[in-house]
Amino acid sequence: MTIEEAREQLKSLQEKMAAYEHAMGLLYYDGATTAPRGTAENRGRSQSILSGESYRLATGPELKETVSFLSEHPEELTAAEKRQIAILEKDWKRMEKIPIDEYMAYSELLVRSESVWWEAKEKSDFAMFCPYLKQVFETCLRFAGYTDPDKKPYEALLDEYEEGLSTELCDRFFAGVRERIVPLIRRIGEAEQIDDSCLDGNYPDWQQERFAKFLMETIGLDLDHVGLGTTEHPFTTSLGSHLDERITTHFHPDRMESSMFSVIHEGGHALYDTGSAPELAFTVLDGGVSMAVHESQSRFYENILGRSPEFLSFIFPKLAGFFPGQLSGVTEEQFCRAVNRVQPSLIRTEADEVTYCLHVLIRYELEQAVLNGEVRVEDLPGEWNALYRKYLGVEVPDDRRGVLQDSHWSGGLIGYFPSYALGSAYGAQFLRKMEESVPVFEDLKAGTFARINDWNREHIWKYGSLKKPTELTESVFGGPFEPEWYFSYLEEKFKKIYRI
Amino acid sequence: MTIEEAREQLKSLQEKMAAYEHAMGLLYYDGATTAPRGTAENRGRSQSILSGESYRLATGPELKETVSFLSEHPEELTAAEKRQIAILEKDWKRMEKIPIDEYMAYSELLVRSESVWWEAKEKSDFAMFCPYLKQVFETCLRFAGYTDPDKKPYEALLDEYEEGLSTELCDRFFAGVRERIVPLIRRIGEAEQIDDSCLDGNYPDWQQERFAKFLMETIGLDLDHVGLGTTEHPFTTSLGSHLDERITTHFHPDRMESSMFSVIHEGGHALYDTGSAPELAFTVLDGGVSMAVHESQSRFYENILGRSPEFLSFIFPKLAGFFPGQLSGVTEEQFCRAVNRVQPSLIRTEADEVTYCLHVLIRYELEQAVLNGEVRVEDLPGEWNALYRKYLGVEVPDDRRGVLQDSHWSGGLIGYFPSYALGSAYGAQFLRKMEESVPVFEDLKAGTFARINDWNREHIWKYGSLKKPTELTESVFGGPFEPEWYFSYLEEKFKKIYRI
Repeated sequence: MTIEEAREQLKSLQEKMAAYEHAMGLLYYDGATTAPRGTAENRGRSQSILSGESYRLATGPELKETVSFLSEHPEELTAAEKRQIAILEKDWKRMEKIPIDEYMAYSELLVRSESVWWEAKEKSDFAMFCPYLKQVFETCLRFAGYTDPDKKPYEALLDEYEEGLSTELCDRFFAGVRERIVPLIRRIGEAEQIDDSCLDGNYPDWQQERFAKFLMETIGLDLDHVGLGTTEHPFTTSLGSHLDERITTHFHPDRMESSMFSVIHEGGHALYDTGSAPELAFTVLDGGVSMAVHESQSRFYENILGRSPEFLSFIFPKLAGFFPGQLSGVTEEQFCRAVNRVQPSLIRTEADEVTYCLHVLIRYELEQAVLNGEVRVEDLPGEWNALYRKYLGVEVPDDRRGVLQDSHWSGGLIGYFPSYALGSAYGAQFLRKMEESVPVFEDLKAGTFARINDWNREHIWKYGSLKKPTELTESVFGGPFEPEWYFSYLEEKFKKIYRI
Repeated sequence: MTIEEAREQLKSLQEKMAAYEHAMGLLYYDGATTAPRGTAENRGRSQSILSGESYRLATGPELKETVSFLSEHPEELTAAEKRQIAILEKDWKRMEKIPIDEYMAYSELLVRSESVWWEAKEKSDFAMFCPYLKQVFETCLRFAGYTDPDKKPYEALLDEYEEGLSTELCDRFFAGVRERIVPLIRRIGEAEQIDDSCLDGNYPDWQQERFAKFLMETIGLDLDHVGLGTTEHPFTTSLGSHLDERITTHFHPDRMESSMFSVIHEGGHALYDTGSAPELAFTVLDGGVSMAVHESQSRFYENILGRSPEFLSFIFPKLAGFFPGQLSGVTEEQFCRAVNRVQPSLIRTEADEVTYCLHVLIRYELEQAVLNGEVRVEDLPGEWNALYRKYLGVEVPDDRRGVLQDSHWSGGLIGYFPSYALGSAYGAQFLRKMEESVPVFEDLKAGTFARINDWNREHIWKYGSLKKPTELTESVFGGPFEPEWYFSYLEEKFKKIYRI
């Protein structure tokens, strides 16, 4: 094999992997958006078979030979190729430790588990979902044992979604949350409360859909390459490459702001993915590098930009144009305060910016407790409700609004939640850097995202997965991650909103 | 290899093929229904790679070895396994004659060609689509040369969609059309004309969608396994197996009957596919056996059942409930006559039952002319328009309503159209047999499809591809195909409607 042949081979293997990812991603997307209800088992079979084929590719002799050969000639490789090889090698070594039949069975299990979760949530019936969730937790535990026998399982899972993330860092971060955010919530609770009843109304799907498309264009998404679907629990996915991106939302008939901020949140994910440098398409470097950096973008657009009084002053008149009947008696100030209302509540995705981290903290504690054997899966509903009482002071009326609310666990994403909180905090630190060269809030007043997006593209998006997460964030921060920026951002913003 | 091992292998290979078909079918479905406009190239890459993988599977040593081994032990095999082997062997021998790189390139070409066709149709710009269509025709010609060097190319293509179909049979059938249908159209043209302006109105998508779901349930589709999408040109596809079926429709804002009959037509396809015996799932025998038999079902439900005065008398009051404002001044009789109006026109899919065959005849003549080198692809618009003048007496105002109207050619379906006409004729002959034991039109008056569907399931659907097309149809007919039944069905029905 010559270097040139090996490079060609490296390229073509990654293209093949991208095609399998495309197929599997589309099966997932279809299942979550438009597939008829009774088709999950059928889809699970295909998902399992394709995951087996993709596993064989990612751990096959062709790939190993190519990667091994190229890694002996680092001087001939570009930085991108070196990183590709490192990722492929890490993945194959990890995957190889998992027996292929277990890998395929897990992939099939997830399709069923997602489908059962969907129904269980609708019926608020945890017992129905419990056996599947047990299997998911058990499989994650077993897989972590295969791949990282020396680590605590939760550490292995955290690292999977966020290279380099540890419980030590999470613990430190959440200690800060307890110290700075809990008192802030208390002070807000003592202040004059915001009435958000001005958001109540009757918002037909078709009106919400038109507004969603407008929002997507406003924040700078290219609708020729980014589609919008509807689903139970909004998510974003790339199909094949960053040239085909799908975001999803959920239209609540009585509250339009839920979909509005979902669209901006998922839009942030999509901006990040589609901002990858064109040459990264069809390689393992395409799209966002990690879950926390991904969430740093989605939550940055949703909250720091999307819920800023400046952007709201731009969007409110437009919004009133899309929903003329419903918002006729509402003022901009009422609207701005209503969508920034802080209120300990039941649903994470609907939570305000301030209490949000506590929802994550609860999941972080529960995931560890289950994996460490301190809590049984069947006892999760009770434990969940107890922690909501403890941290948020709210009573969970049913599992639909409790332990069944998120799709993550049913999809095998154990250890994913902390990245939401960390991402939020990264975003605040990115903002401080961005403001050094971009008049962020002035642009938002004008509804102009070009300079904001350019900055993100230059500093974050274009790299795809070329840099490791910490390497990327620290190079942008110009130093280590400092949660302080996040805590002070929240304090500053909400003291103003609550006039305290 | 033992017989048992070979049988297991046969099963598992077919399951793998079904998973690839699932992925490729879903890529197609996604592209035709929800994918953003600019994503065709990205999808084409994945489609090409997956088609290559599927080609390797269908022509690989594992499959050949298994099939060859089993075909030496026919006495040990079930009828289903024998037929599976025959199909797999025929396919591999056919596919192997096409070089894999040409096969993959063709698959990629089709994705692009579909996407360009879509835009060209919208802009009524044939020049834009022409180079793609040329390549499609050239590839079909080249492939036919590889697979059936001794046959005329068009014969090879006909046989691909309908095992055993020949130009000789088509010529005979179309001679009958000229002899029996052309005079019928003339007589109808001389009778008092039907005014169908009662169908004009303003029909919002969401109302049409609700009615479409109701129709699907009425004709007996299981909505847990059959989904509804919207697209430019309605089609039906199975995904992975008959356990996940998708039909599509197109909502015209000013005429609701277009989608109504599309839904019943595609619903007929879906009933056929989903009626396969359960044990056929994940084998090559799953789903309908051929295009003509498929069309015999879809056009049977659409026209013979769906446009019968009996069914219309059942559905009209329901319809008026779904569209109360729009149909308030319309009587059942007006509606029934309007949807059975015979009028030489431009668009095949909107054509009435009587003139329909002439639309097919035109395409049949043009396909042959291009493949025989008598007409150049660039001259198709002019030839198309000339034939519409000759057979239907209508002037084609633009290519959007002319040569660009159908999606088939852009999707590589050359030689497919004749099956629409033959299918229609099969349907009339099935009806005569069905009426021997089922009071078809009495049931339709009550909107009851159970006995009709049971008859079709017992005689046609459950076999999937277990029998060859002619074997199946002749066993149902109790003899050879007789187009006479079709011609007399049309004469009888339309003489009554036109009171001639």
